[in-house]
Amino acid sequence: MTQPFSFRLLATDGRARRGEIVTPHGVVRTPAFMPVGTLGTVKAMFMDDVKATGADVVLGNTYHLMLRPGAERVAALGGLHKFSTWDKTILTDSGGFQVMSLAQLRKMDERGVTFQSHIDGSRHELTPERSIEIQGLLGSDIQMQLDECVRLPAEPKEVERGMQLSLRWAERSRRQFEAMGGPEKGQGLYGIVQGGDVPSLREVSARELSAMPFEGYSVGGLAVGEPQAVMLKMIDVVDPILPRDKPRYLMGVGTPDDIIESVARGIDQFDCVMPTRAGRHGLAYTRFGKLNFKNARHMDDPRPIDPTSDCPAARDYSRAYIHHLVRTGEALGAMLLTWVNVAYYQSLMQGIRDAIEAGRFEEFKAETKAAWARGENG
Amino acid sequence: MTQPFSFRLLATDGRARRGEIVTPHGVVRTPAFMPVGTLGTVKAMFMDDVKATGADVVLGNTYHLMLRPGAERVAALGGLHKFSTWDKTILTDSGGFQVMSLAQLRKMDERGVTFQSHIDGSRHELTPERSIEIQGLLGSDIQMQLDECVRLPAEPKEVERGMQLSLRWAERSRRQFEAMGGPEKGQGLYGIVQGGDVPSLREVSARELSAMPFEGYSVGGLAVGEPQAVMLKMIDVVDPILPRDKPRYLMGVGTPDDIIESVARGIDQFDCVMPTRAGRHGLAYTRFGKLNFKNARHMDDPRPIDPTSDCPAARDYSRAYIHHLVRTGEALGAMLLTWVNVAYYQSLMQGIRDAIEAGRFEEFKAETKAAWARGENG
Repeated sequence: MTQPFSFRLLATDGRARRGEIVTPHGVVRTPAFMPVGTLGTVKAMFMDDVKATGADVVLGNTYHLMLRPGAERVAALGGLHKFSTWDKTILTDSGGFQVMSLAQLRKMDERGVTFQSHIDGSRHELTPERSIEIQGLLGSDIQMQLDECVRLPAEPKEVERGMQLSLRWAERSRRQFEAMGGPEKGQGLYGIVQGGDVPSLREVSARELSAMPFEGYSVGGLAVGEPQAVMLKMIDVVDPILPRDKPRYLMGVGTPDDIIESVARGIDQFDCVMPTRAGRHGLAYTRFGKLNFKNARHMDDPRPIDPTSDCPAARDYSRAYIHHLVRTGEALGAMLLTWVNVAYYQSLMQGIRDAIEAGRFEEFKAETKAAWARGENG
Repeated sequence: MTQPFSFRLLATDGRARRGEIVTPHGVVRTPAFMPVGTLGTVKAMFMDDVKATGADVVLGNTYHLMLRPGAERVAALGGLHKFSTWDKTILTDSGGFQVMSLAQLRKMDERGVTFQSHIDGSRHELTPERSIEIQGLLGSDIQMQLDECVRLPAEPKEVERGMQLSLRWAERSRRQFEAMGGPEKGQGLYGIVQGGDVPSLREVSARELSAMPFEGYSVGGLAVGEPQAVMLKMIDVVDPILPRDKPRYLMGVGTPDDIIESVARGIDQFDCVMPTRAGRHGLAYTRFGKLNFKNARHMDDPRPIDPTSDCPAARDYSRAYIHHLVRTGEALGAMLLTWVNVAYYQSLMQGIRDAIEAGRFEEFKAETKAAWARGENG
């Protein structure tokens, strides 16, 4: 048997936590940001460069991968690690969120959800059991239960129905995970807290899930357009309930500010398309805030984005050149800015981890936010 | 004064030539293939990776760069080498060919050509003097005279008119190049042989240009849709006329087969969008012919494109993965296949150079063509 999935808390500072997850593909230093690699590729980057930014884990999307190239095909090719050339940890979602946001002609019942592919209209079914089966075929190190994420705003009754269904699906997901030998392979399965923006429902969900033997816990159904204050309030509600010795993953979050505020409330893992998507749209995240390279003010600027950065893309190319690439629609513009953003997110996480270890997370948070607000010329 | 532009013939094998061009930015081993970097970027590649494939020189397009970001802007930013981060040799074309193929509302007379930008309709003028001025502002190591490339098929009278105009523009280009101190900077200016598909006109053009003090000679107006036999015939016509101690550059060529046949006829330099464009369209060039990654036959193939390649893109990714990337339109597919193709073209040139040195070019040519024809399963 492989070494089992484990989580170790190395240090805390207030509610902020510095830890380490061990999976069959290495150590994940937490708090961790997981770049999104929807289809087995972090868009417009080489995996070697993703790794060099300090990422310990990337996320794959079950919905996309089950449609193309197909879970059985990936398994026959040796699993998602080998297929994608990413040899560190992979986390997969359950597919549920994308079924609800992308697929057509969905029909959901107790058993699961049937839908038509948004690509070719082909019919598929996703049940808790099939979602875990797919994630197992992909060889995912950290898997998610299938859940239902009710779209907000919604009536509390509807939010409760989705939350309760998700709890029943949590049990079925867990059974399937164990039937497939996930624990023996050292993989982890996370339960997902639902309950929308209703604190009492979040509490019920967190309590019920905590009683089940998950390796970690996700907070789902947030970062879907609600104000940041609502998101942080929901984290505050579940923080004291979730087991302290398990990792907590805030799904789909977020901006650098969302991340730093959520770490302050005990969150250990994050994923978001923001750094990669922004990179394809001419935006750079930096320690002094965002830069929009569509803006003509960069046209004659010989400076690199950040001469102090370890990232070649931020250090070795002029802003004028990057502006030119973005303006002319050259692929290299997206390649460089995606790299800049993934590197900045990782350097932010490294700063967060160092600060927690040093017992100065609050100062780091204040300094970091001040630098964003001040901008580079402040 | 910098070391002057120079060309040295190191070996010959039949009419095939192995040589070395020295420019202010290093040595160009010939026969050389120059990847196209139209806008100061070899599309979808990092310059470090271009360099690692063995390319000694890339091409920039004067027409595109004069419109965006503008020659004066590039000069203010330190020149095209610094702007693009390519620190080896840069060759630029004159802009004439793209004006005729891309720009709108062209008006040509003895003085030059006025046109509207295909991007924003702005009015511009390109004369022999302005073309050289732009190439000087870019800091190009190997510059081209402005010429007129008459579209084939055309009446011999019309071909002759364009060829004669190009000869007069050759003189004006040379005067401007010397006025700008090109020779003192160690840069080179090439005259361009025109004359369409009319042997007697090609002879006149080659003879007249040979009497002018150019650092090299281009063969223009070919690879525009004519049969390969016509192209090779035109090379045969000019080969005995052009000075043997100057490099010969066949513009816009071509397929691997075009290249090997042209080397056999004394050509030293090539450029073509084929490897980069094909890479963005799912095609790989390999030593056993072309592979089309849109084809579903690659879907379950765990093999790399070529395990014997030095290129990581050809060696470290499965065909199944590359097919998946192409099928899903992921940027990484274009990034990998462009890299594969640029690397294959460079390895072909290295093979050609080695074979000429070893006095076995004809054998190499036969073996290489047999391998393409046989395919990998032959």
